[in-house]
Amino acid sequence: MAATHTKKSKMKLRRSPAKERLLSHVARDGSVAMVDVAEKAVTSRFAVAQAEVVMAPRVLRLIMSQSMKKGDVLVTAQIAGILAAKNTSQLIPLCHPLPLTHIDVRCEAQSPDRVRVRCTAACNAQTGVEMEALTGAAVAALTIYDMCKAADRGIVIERLALVEKAGGKSGHYRRKHIGRPTD
Amino acid sequence: MAATHTKKSKMKLRRSPAKERLLSHVARDGSVAMVDVAEKAVTSRFAVAQAEVVMAPRVLRLIMSQSMKKGDVLVTAQIAGILAAKNTSQLIPLCHPLPLTHIDVRCEAQSPDRVRVRCTAACNAQTGVEMEALTGAAVAALTIYDMCKAADRGIVIERLALVEKAGGKSGHYRRKHIGRPTD
Amino acid sequence: MAATHTKKSKMKLRRSPAKERLLSHVARDGSVAMVDVAEKAVTSRFAVAQAEVVMAPRVLRLIMSQSMKKGDVLVTAQIAGILAAKNTSQLIPLCHPLPLTHIDVRCEAQSPDRVRVRCTAACNAQTGVEMEALTGAAVAALTIYDMCKAADRGIVIERLALVEKAGGKSGHYRRKHIGRPTD
Amino acid sequence: MAATHTKKSKMKLRRSPAKERLLSHVARDGSVAMVDVAEKAVTSRFAVAQAEVVMAPRVLRLIMSQSMKKGDVLVTAQIAGILAAKNTSQLIPLCHPLPLTHIDVRCEAQSPDRVRVRCTAACNAQTGVEMEALTGAAVAALTIYDMCKAADRGIVIERLALVEKAGGKSGHYRRKHIGRPTD
Amino acid sequence: MAATHTKKSKMKLRRSPAKERLLSHVARDGSVAMVDVAEKAVTSRFAVAQAEVVMAPRVLRLIMSQSMKKGDVLVTAQIAGILAAKNTSQLIPLCHPLPLTHIDVRCEAQSPDRVRVRCTAACNAQTGVEMEALTGAAVAALTIYDMCKAADRGIVIERLALVEKAGGKSGHYRRKHIGRPTD
Amino acid sequence: MAATHTKKSKMKLRRSPAKERLLSHVARDGSVAMVDVAEKAVTSRFAVAQAEVVMAPRVLRLIMSQSMKKGDVLVTAQIAGILAAKNTSQLIPLCHPLPLTHIDVRCEAQSPDRVRVRCTAACNAQTGVEMEALTGAAVAALTIYDMCKAADRGIVIERLALVEKAGGKSGHYRRKHIGRPTD
Repeated sequence: MAATHTKKSKMKLRRSPAKERLLSHVARDGSVAMVDVAEKAVTSRFAVAQAEVVMAPRVLRLIMSQSMKKGDVLVTAQIAGILAAKNTSQLIPLCHPLPLTHIDVRCEAQSPDRVRVRCTAACNAQTGVEMEALTGAAVAALTIYDMCKAADRGIVIERLALVEKAGGKSGHYRRKHIGRPTD
Repeated sequence: MAATHTKKSKMKLRRSPAKERLLSHVARDGSVAMVDVAEKAVTSRFAVAQAEVVMAPRVLRLIMSQSMKKGDVLVTAQIAGILAAKNTSQLIPLCHPLPLTHIDVRCEAQSPDRVRVRCTAACNAQTGVEMEALTGAAVAALTIYDMCKAADRGIVIERLALVEKAGGKSGHYRRKHIGRPTD
Repeated sequence: MAATHTKKSKMKLRRSPAKERLLSHVARDGSVAMVDVAEKAVTSRFAVAQAEVVMAPRVLRLIMSQSMKKGDVLVTAQIAGILAAKNTSQLIPLCHPLPLTHIDVRCEAQSPDRVRVRCTAACNAQTGVEMEALTGAAVAALTIYDMCKAADRGIVIERLALVEKAGGKSGHYRRKHIGRPTD
Repeated sequence: MAATHTKKSKMKLRRSPAKERLLSHVARDGSVAMVDVAEKAVTSRFAVAQAEVVMAPRVLRLIMSQSMKKGDVLVTAQIAGILAAKNTSQLIPLCHPLPLTHIDVRCEAQSPDRVRVRCTAACNAQTGVEMEALTGAAVAALTIYDMCKAADRGIVIERLALVEKAGGKSGHYRRKHIGRPTD
Repeated sequence: MAATHTKKSKMKLRRSPAKERLLSHVARDGSVAMVDVAEKAVTSRFAVAQAEVVMAPRVLRLIMSQSMKKGDVLVTAQIAGILAAKNTSQLIPLCHPLPLTHIDVRCEAQSPDRVRVRCTAACNAQTGVEMEALTGAAVAALTIYDMCKAADRGIVIERLALVEKAGGKSGHYRRKHIGRPTD
Repeated sequence: MAATHTKKSKMKLRRSPAKERLLSHVARDGSVAMVDVAEKAVTSRFAVAQAEVVMAPRVLRLIMSQSMKKGDVLVTAQIAGILAAKNTSQLIPLCHPLPLTHIDVRCEAQSPDRVRVRCTAACNAQTGVEMEALTGAAVAALTIYDMCKAADRGIVIERLALVEKAGGKSGHYRRKHIGRPTD
């Protein structure tokens, strides 16, 4: 079982930076913790994540025709994604609670069988907001799934991934390509 | 805006079953609602959903070596998935609150770069538990992502989908292959 | 301070039915509790509540013109109301958690300066769902307020009240007029 | 459906300030979002909201007589209002999470048939706390309703409205009269 | 890592009942799960738990004198305990969500330096409500702590334990003495 | 009932500091409120709390042997404690919402029949984090209880108390001994 968290063990951890960075939230003794960010600088941060909901084209046509009238499916997904992004620190156990300054969830038909969800989250904080963006995108995609599942049992959510991220020590990151992993 | 929900409008909806079934939770006038399941029979239901977390093989080796010691990453993901499955009706706006009788989240290394998450949910209820299984799988996968993101920025969550489902009118469904749905 | 809750004190309470019914959730000794409904019959219950959001006519015209395009304000209010109705037992301290079978929130322009929100909640349960309907109506109305407050600081939410209710011992209740209650 | 949120579209929005301010949280293309407040100054803000619970005088006398003993009904309402104010960003979809520094809920008999609830919320933040004050007042009023509903089915919650507000660009606002807003 | 949960593995588990019962929620392979209660009978269940808040006598005198006026400290603790009991399945990861029919939290001065909190929870369900009773007692005790901590830094919460329990296969259990368990 | 909260009443409170400090969150008129911390300085704060789970030695041996394999019981408790600490302001009614920068929950076998849980919480804030540390310790201890209750009905949670605390006006506090507080 775990030794008590002391100044001394923190110093030791700093002497082995290679190991320290490998997994987030896992201390040197293998136990989990919400990492200490108290001494990190508050910087302006944002992250963009995406997910793709792949469904039968007839179902997507149905969403779009209703969207022309009312957009209920996609607005419902937006609202669910925004609320979930704000709730990230209760869903993902080791995420810090963050005072988000902005959340935006957008849904676009990308091809005849595919809706792409994009969630942007922003914050002035000591740690990044990528989990907020990913959680918002995931829950918005699941909400679209929920509203279409009676019409298509074979819906798949694909390519839930980080698209862009800025702020903090690691600088600006922008992904060129979300590729399919090879087997 | 929407007309008041009356007995009469419900009868009309029943006369157009083709349309009625197309999208869940969308009434004929295009407005959303949590559908009325009061007259559906209580049956024993279960659903299994999956997600795959694709990462650099060196990161997966790291999880596994820690797992041999303590399993912290995967147990953390399990717990997060179980809690999220129980919270589904607060995350997915039109899901009914369900008294789940069982939730199980499992994580398995499927190939050198891929962890597969499976979430099983079960309930004696008037409506199905597939959203609970999907939400559990999604949040468990996001938790693995969160704990590995410092080691690999390119992690992608793939193939979040229903695998199996039983109970209710629609009978037993088992998916052979998670690919693209056909029209 | 309160005496321990015993069979004996419950029997005494039953001997003074006049007092017992006056305030819900308040025991004879003045202390609060979530009342015991274990021996009440499970019956089919529903309740309808309403609220009115009174605003400047130019603001309502704005909502309606956007509604013709996308209905975002009113769909957002619907979703917020549905989620809040499902969360009633965490918001109203002495409400029982209920497995709601149906929730529907509708918003209608009632006059040039007034949107009426109606929330219907239904359940097969041992206690009524009027607090769920009222909570759904209140939060939907507050969401409309939130989205219009930049355009009109003087918005008022009026006449948040029960409209109709059925199921349980007290039978069907339908309100003719929402005015001031008489003694 | 919505175009991706880009610097360019933000600039365009700035060129049409008249439209931009009309509805909060609604972007130019009609889609909803939690607005970006990252560049707004952190200022000390407070807001006061109220609601009135109108009931039969015999019920209010009952509350007051119990209040003389224990005050359970009104303390329960206070606690429910305080908790709800802290939960506002999970209830009202487009509200920012705010680190409230103070919440106070008070209940006063205003006339023989009327309890007035006042909720004060304060924060050092980039956006205002009026929704927190309104949500606290609404849930406290609903809690009083819940505890009195067995004694009076005709209770109505009236005049849920903002009373006072300070901080931010718009300055100090104090309402003289809660009536109908004029055009 | 864990093998998939199959009928076969369940049968095997049944053949080793001695091991199966040792730890709740831990499957044979050591992984955690919310156990399957679908085939257990629905019975009427209740549980009573307690906690003791030990503080300086001058602080308890202060609570009691305020209690004579308004009882705010103890009513606040009651409400917090009732809400927490209803939230148990979100706090304790492997607890089933249960439709509680009754919750009652009582606080009594037991000696000059000690307040005893008792929480009763009841339910018609397939599994017991002892965690609900314990969670309610714990959070009520923590709320008393919170309100007294400025007056006494040395407060200790003692003897948080199950007092009584009925329903289900294991029958009626009533504890005579809360001391150290024996081997 | 309570008078409105005015500048004047605050000034009066300041003139009677002896009374003001006795109970937290209780105003001079006996009513509860979330105290105003807006003018307190933001300082770096941390708190450490503990709880002890006392059980039959055979049950603790079982946890430890499983821990050697997977550690599921104690990791589950850690995760539950971390999530609960982040949720403190929704559980303890008068706690301020705080942007925690660090949470760490550790579990150690202290003697053959006793697991000690320690929760550390840290924050840069205007008020202390002791309730967060206590809530994390309590819920982690309850989670251990939940997973062991089938093996031992007599488990007791003992000595839930603050161990250490720093930051804010009151300076560094470290407890030598958790016993009974003296008058």
